[in-house]
Amino acid sequence: MVTVGIIGAGRIGQVHMTSISTRVPNARIKYVADPYMDEKKEAFAKAHGVEIVTKNYKEVLADKDVDAVLICSSTDTHSPISLEAIAAGKHVFCEKPIDHDVAKIKEVIEALKKNPVKYQVGFNRRFDHNFRAVRAAIDAGKVGEEHIIRITSRDPEPPSPAYVAVSGGMFMDMTIHDFDMVRYLAGCDPVEVFVEGAVLVDPAIGEAGDIDTAVITMKMENGAIATIDNSRKAVYGYDQRAEVFGSKGMAATANDAASTCVISNENGVTGEVPLHFFLERYMDAYAQEIISFVNAIENDTDTELNVYDGLKPVLMAMACNKSLKEHRVVKMSEIEA
Amino acid sequence: MVTVGIIGAGRIGQVHMTSISTRVPNARIKYVADPYMDEKKEAFAKAHGVEIVTKNYKEVLADKDVDAVLICSSTDTHSPISLEAIAAGKHVFCEKPIDHDVAKIKEVIEALKKNPVKYQVGFNRRFDHNFRAVRAAIDAGKVGEEHIIRITSRDPEPPSPAYVAVSGGMFMDMTIHDFDMVRYLAGCDPVEVFVEGAVLVDPAIGEAGDIDTAVITMKMENGAIATIDNSRKAVYGYDQRAEVFGSKGMAATANDAASTCVISNENGVTGEVPLHFFLERYMDAYAQEIISFVNAIENDTDTELNVYDGLKPVLMAMACNKSLKEHRVVKMSEIEA
Amino acid sequence: MVTVGIIGAGRIGQVHMTSISTRVPNARIKYVADPYMDEKKEAFAKAHGVEIVTKNYKEVLADKDVDAVLICSSTDTHSPISLEAIAAGKHVFCEKPIDHDVAKIKEVIEALKKNPVKYQVGFNRRFDHNFRAVRAAIDAGKVGEEHIIRITSRDPEPPSPAYVAVSGGMFMDMTIHDFDMVRYLAGCDPVEVFVEGAVLVDPAIGEAGDIDTAVITMKMENGAIATIDNSRKAVYGYDQRAEVFGSKGMAATANDAASTCVISNENGVTGEVPLHFFLERYMDAYAQEIISFVNAIENDTDTELNVYDGLKPVLMAMACNKSLKEHRVVKMSEIEA
Amino acid sequence: MVTVGIIGAGRIGQVHMTSISTRVPNARIKYVADPYMDEKKEAFAKAHGVEIVTKNYKEVLADKDVDAVLICSSTDTHSPISLEAIAAGKHVFCEKPIDHDVAKIKEVIEALKKNPVKYQVGFNRRFDHNFRAVRAAIDAGKVGEEHIIRITSRDPEPPSPAYVAVSGGMFMDMTIHDFDMVRYLAGCDPVEVFVEGAVLVDPAIGEAGDIDTAVITMKMENGAIATIDNSRKAVYGYDQRAEVFGSKGMAATANDAASTCVISNENGVTGEVPLHFFLERYMDAYAQEIISFVNAIENDTDTELNVYDGLKPVLMAMACNKSLKEHRVVKMSEIEA
Repeated sequence: MVTVGIIGAGRIGQVHMTSISTRVPNARIKYVADPYMDEKKEAFAKAHGVEIVTKNYKEVLADKDVDAVLICSSTDTHSPISLEAIAAGKHVFCEKPIDHDVAKIKEVIEALKKNPVKYQVGFNRRFDHNFRAVRAAIDAGKVGEEHIIRITSRDPEPPSPAYVAVSGGMFMDMTIHDFDMVRYLAGCDPVEVFVEGAVLVDPAIGEAGDIDTAVITMKMENGAIATIDNSRKAVYGYDQRAEVFGSKGMAATANDAASTCVISNENGVTGEVPLHFFLERYMDAYAQEIISFVNAIENDTDTELNVYDGLKPVLMAMACNKSLKEHRVVKMSEIEA
Repeated sequence: MVTVGIIGAGRIGQVHMTSISTRVPNARIKYVADPYMDEKKEAFAKAHGVEIVTKNYKEVLADKDVDAVLICSSTDTHSPISLEAIAAGKHVFCEKPIDHDVAKIKEVIEALKKNPVKYQVGFNRRFDHNFRAVRAAIDAGKVGEEHIIRITSRDPEPPSPAYVAVSGGMFMDMTIHDFDMVRYLAGCDPVEVFVEGAVLVDPAIGEAGDIDTAVITMKMENGAIATIDNSRKAVYGYDQRAEVFGSKGMAATANDAASTCVISNENGVTGEVPLHFFLERYMDAYAQEIISFVNAIENDTDTELNVYDGLKPVLMAMACNKSLKEHRVVKMSEIEA
Repeated sequence: MVTVGIIGAGRIGQVHMTSISTRVPNARIKYVADPYMDEKKEAFAKAHGVEIVTKNYKEVLADKDVDAVLICSSTDTHSPISLEAIAAGKHVFCEKPIDHDVAKIKEVIEALKKNPVKYQVGFNRRFDHNFRAVRAAIDAGKVGEEHIIRITSRDPEPPSPAYVAVSGGMFMDMTIHDFDMVRYLAGCDPVEVFVEGAVLVDPAIGEAGDIDTAVITMKMENGAIATIDNSRKAVYGYDQRAEVFGSKGMAATANDAASTCVISNENGVTGEVPLHFFLERYMDAYAQEIISFVNAIENDTDTELNVYDGLKPVLMAMACNKSLKEHRVVKMSEIEA
Repeated sequence: MVTVGIIGAGRIGQVHMTSISTRVPNARIKYVADPYMDEKKEAFAKAHGVEIVTKNYKEVLADKDVDAVLICSSTDTHSPISLEAIAAGKHVFCEKPIDHDVAKIKEVIEALKKNPVKYQVGFNRRFDHNFRAVRAAIDAGKVGEEHIIRITSRDPEPPSPAYVAVSGGMFMDMTIHDFDMVRYLAGCDPVEVFVEGAVLVDPAIGEAGDIDTAVITMKMENGAIATIDNSRKAVYGYDQRAEVFGSKGMAATANDAASTCVISNENGVTGEVPLHFFLERYMDAYAQEIISFVNAIENDTDTELNVYDGLKPVLMAMACNKSLKEHRVVKMSEIEA
């Protein structure tokens, strides 16, 4: 039985409380800490079997009973709390991104060298049934050498301009999941990136200094060419697909829908739209990543994602920002240097 | 090179003229005969390379140059012209049904015993790419022993009550193709049939003494249970599907559509309706059946369907009519006796 | 908050414990009773938040705190415990079938007339996302008047001959779910049934006096013709489909699979098999039926299924057994009389 | 009735002979000219209703009876014969590309200014049922403003290194069709291109100085971002798909297969591979382009593609070659200048 403390009782913290209370039999949540803890959050926590709620996460880190923490607080606190948790000898599950600033991620890396606790980053999509099946097909040799990787990732609704302004930009906020997915499906890192970006969905996003539509092309270390196409708004819902094409075949996913029901009439043969909301679409993946993390602790095995898996997508986002700004191919070596 | 005469220059006769002129390089059409030959029909024939047009089919039968005739005239003439053609030593392709009257079909059978020319019946759907693929899967052992056969056959538009009155009834007019399909997919005949029928599409069809909706269940000689479901009107178009389920797997078809284009928006993910018109849907099958017939003549091999394949579906239609009327299981032996 | 007691701690009792503990926030499980309660069952119950475990279900019925019971014990105990629970004023969720003996179901009906507690029968498939979507399409007028209803229900593995011998027969054991589904999709009862059955999967099933393959045809009160096709063994997994065809369109479902991943290579374009195990396939439906039951109690509304919905499929199974035996159409009025 | 002469009796010339003889009732082929005319080619022509065969195309141009010529000879002869045909007042259907050298295409443009005959270029894919349906969806407003266009175009088999050496390179030889498709689906030209290319299929292609795998990204004049992904070898067959995503929805195609038959067994649910051979896949499109050309002559309307539609893809290929070589974004204005 792994004892965890959850730091941050917002939306994603609540997702993890739900997962652990209903689907992770070998974990218990001793604490939930949130500086803005209120009655509603407390009630949610209590209803999900949390033993202690607090406004001060330091209490969690001080309790020897606690094996691991889930850092679900605001992005700017991810790296400092990571450092404290590592120093306290706690295993860490940290929501993405660790930080927008590489230097701060590197501090975490250094800290882990001294205190080698488990450190998993919250790229949940790797745990999704569809993408897992693609990865399994690759591992089973059904794709052969990878030649072309295509990821389509389109949101159902654009964020507010206010959010855009603080989001770190589309690459750091949204595409970062796709960067992780490219690495997951390629099994390696990119060598270089090129971005063609545009503001096509909402001019206000452009006024906030960001883009809302992009096609990113990458050359990967294994020779494959990868593309990501992003839009902040697909009217038909949340479009999340991947296709890996190689010397022996192709593995591709379609979207998940609420049912398989198809209606035929004079107007056509109509199936359901993709699941709209990311929490609904990735509900199971959020549980699977925690199951995986808790099992890694219990069995003392490597986590499926580690701190470098947290770093690399941030570097890719930086390379894409540079490519967008300078309108040229950017080598990853320019960023990592 | 096989020389053919086409008897009947109506819709189906024209289909065969088109097929032969464009897709059957080893056949030429020397004659088209039609008692109602007019300028328009003549022009069509000439445009499709027909050498001689006539109102009198006996001219065709009298010409020693003619190897084979295609009987595309009205149903009541199928068996008498068949008899004349067989007596004249011509190979015969006869549109379905040979006759509604079993005695007349048996005369054709007797005639063929004396003059064993090739005799193929126009059950074109056996030559359709989708149903051929199901049959091929069965032949390749992918279904194993057949357990359940399901045929869905629904027309896009009901016939006029006037047509219904002279059609011989839905089983003889429409389902007869499905009876042939069941035999094709089962590779054997039924032992017994049961019909549940209804008038749900158009009361005028009921007033004309027919039904427009039916589910037919059959026990086949190979032990499989087969069902056919028929409707005279599917608003989404011509619904033509089959499914064969067995000990090793299932082979199933979907409908053909005009394109694979799918449109996704707030209302769903919408593909095209099935091809609406039977000539469009089975265009290729109509050509394939003639190619097969001509090749059987040229290579002196058995035709893919023979006169018994023309007889059996008529017997099945009779059994179904009896089952509908008496509302009970009818053994095929009751009919064949 | 609804307080429930679960009677029967076997497989289905455990499914409901899981559902309630993880997905039904407005219910708590005070008791689990099982005459064969052992350490393992007790541990499972405790892990799912059950407060008291006992071997004696009468304790549950005696506790005034308990609002409702879930009867998950062996089939022969369903009706007697139902009677006791109703007498004790408890709302009842009873697993299907209430009984194989109509007289005993009628005792429950009579008891409910005196003590009108909520009484829901465990036909979980009505709560499945795919079949719900078909029903919703019908309710939205997208099908129009129903003409043809087709249900395919094939198990992945046949039961053991030992189980067959005590199962009540395929219709009472397996098809009973499909009888409920026909009623759900038609929105009415059948008028008559006809069965074509066979032993094609396993001769031992035949030796045990049962069949393993069937096609059932029904005329429904609304005029539609319905068919169910059953097999005890589909090598590709659990095949659970429905199609409703009517004057305005068709609503049809496909099977659920573990992922949408499709692999293309020289051998074809291959997707995943249907989910194999019924608990996996209907996991969500099992939760939804309990959510619905608990909400009906909390809101004092009708349950989505009542005792008559438990009775009717049993009558249909009886009619089908009679049809199979006498090999003729059987009117429901022959059974109900 | 339009009288045509076909110049070039090789594979594509024969495709057009077949189309005209079987599917274009308002055209007749008076001549087929081929410097390498032999018995086999002559026999093919005669069997397809060609009146005169010759080794000298100048005979065709000299005959006042001839309304139009189809230039199906080797690529290097396309522009000189075009010039002669235009000078002779013949309408011209010219296979792609007009020339690899822009200056020569411009000569044709100049010639057409003096003699404005119809001039259609053989980009057949615009006439394909699937891509037509996407274009129709766009025209019907179902996509809205275009944001992202994706074209997948992968050959079933790589060309021989010998062919590669004379092919003009993958962009000029293969992708040129996709450049036309991008223009067709976008309804405008690109502003800039970027190529990520690789040799992943066959090192011999690299040794011949070409690539076999590429992802091309383009910014279009309408603001949309377009990608083409190319491979010289898809083991599952000829992969020809397009997807257009916009403000109101997405229109996307799937591949065509030989049948809709799907086989389900323990190994999965398997449909057929895409049609393998381009002549089979685009059979109908080849006929439709000639029907369209002949109708444009008969009705004196614009051809669906003109000489500029022949020029633009060549410029795009040049831009892509430059981008590949210099590994940077290339503006179309750099090429057109």
